[in-house]
Amino acid sequence: VTTDKKDIPLAAMERLLKKAGAERVSEDAKAALRDSLEEFALRIGQDAIRYSNHAGRKTVKAEDIKLATTK
Amino acid sequence: VTTDKKDIPLAAMERLLKKAGAERVSEDAKAALRDSLEEFALRIGQDAIRYSNHAGRKTVKAEDIKLATTK
Repeated sequence: VTTDKKDIPLAAMERLLKKAGAERVSEDAKAALRDSLEEFALRIGQDAIRYSNHAGRKTVKAEDIKLATTK
Repeated sequence: VTTDKKDIPLAAMERLLKKAGAERVSEDAKAALRDSLEEFALRIGQDAIRYSNHAGRKTVKAEDIKLATTK
């Protein structure tokens, strides 16, 4: 699975980095964080889908996401 | 560090879960994924800030983010 178009807005990355305590954030840092988050989301998503199928569902629920993030 | 307001839009979570292969996604699944991503982003951000300070900078750069995501 690849992300052609970017899904998470860079402005959200800047807000999160400021919340983490950053004074200044470069544009490429926001893009790097977004890439890392999208990769993480796809990995979690694929696991969560497997868990939902395993439970006999076609709908991914929060419990699938939670199981995927804690394993 | 806590996220009071949510920074990443839920629509982005739905797009990423669909890219991962999900047929259907519940609202609470999107929220759970967002929470998990924001927590991950804050952890990465705090490490990246430490690395930027260590390099004598006040600006977080992509190299700090990359170091934080690979350690």
